[in-house]
Amino acid sequence: MPHIETPTSTDEAQIRALIEQRTQALAVKDAAALTSHYASDVVLFDVVGPLRHLGADAHTERVTEWLSIYRGGIGYTIRDLSITAGDGIAFCHYLYRVSGTMTDGRQVDMWVRSTICLRKTGGDWTITHEHTSVPFDGATGAASLDLQPS
Amino acid sequence: MPHIETPTSTDEAQIRALIEQRTQALAVKDAAALTSHYASDVVLFDVVGPLRHLGADAHTERVTEWLSIYRGGIGYTIRDLSITAGDGIAFCHYLYRVSGTMTDGRQVDMWVRSTICLRKTGGDWTITHEHTSVPFDGATGAASLDLQPS
Repeated sequence: MPHIETPTSTDEAQIRALIEQRTQALAVKDAAALTSHYASDVVLFDVVGPLRHLGADAHTERVTEWLSIYRGGIGYTIRDLSITAGDGIAFCHYLYRVSGTMTDGRQVDMWVRSTICLRKTGGDWTITHEHTSVPFDGATGAASLDLQPS
Repeated sequence: MPHIETPTSTDEAQIRALIEQRTQALAVKDAAALTSHYASDVVLFDVVGPLRHLGADAHTERVTEWLSIYRGGIGYTIRDLSITAGDGIAFCHYLYRVSGTMTDGRQVDMWVRSTICLRKTGGDWTITHEHTSVPFDGATGAASLDLQPS
């Protein structure tokens, strides 16, 4: 008897595709792919300052800046992606390892936490909130850039 | 003609109460109030390391530690709370200002970003994921502890 997989819900599959396409988009610095699927009033808590960016235009500006500080493509490995999707509302969280060489020669290789909240509008899932961060060390005040997932 | 407020949905009101009770709970260090409403398999991305805590027991341990490093009550002022609640799934995000005196005499007074994701089980909203952070300064690697909301 063949093994039959439990069918993935369409909503979950759509959101999974939306997240997983980031890896390829960052490898080739495809800004258009990285800035699609965002609500015009998105609230972004980013890994570096300021406290927040408000709106899709601010998000696009931030993505453009991010891509510009790397020499080549940006490595983006997703791990432990968890998706909870309901009737028009969804959230997901995961860890990602970002790596690459910055224009000033510095090597980046660190694990980051990501939470993404979405609403379905017009049949498509749209990101209304995104929170990306690393923790910091309370004793030194330094961001913890060398942590590994347990 | 009297001004009529749009009625707040019961779900949104329940979640708002769940979040807003933190201010009073932290003022009096009520660990029981701070650790209720969490799913047994909650995934916590906290403001300080490690990368994540898994499960309600780990969350309770972290809250107990947090309360213990402050001399007295902890100030917790919530701002810009946004709640999106649907059929059994919800998420919210806000900024909070945390303040107080640590047992080693250090003063804490900083703005933090918070995202909370919930599921409704048995008629009650339960937190399945929480992400709390400050951004860091990419030039120095230091956590940004002195930012103000714009």
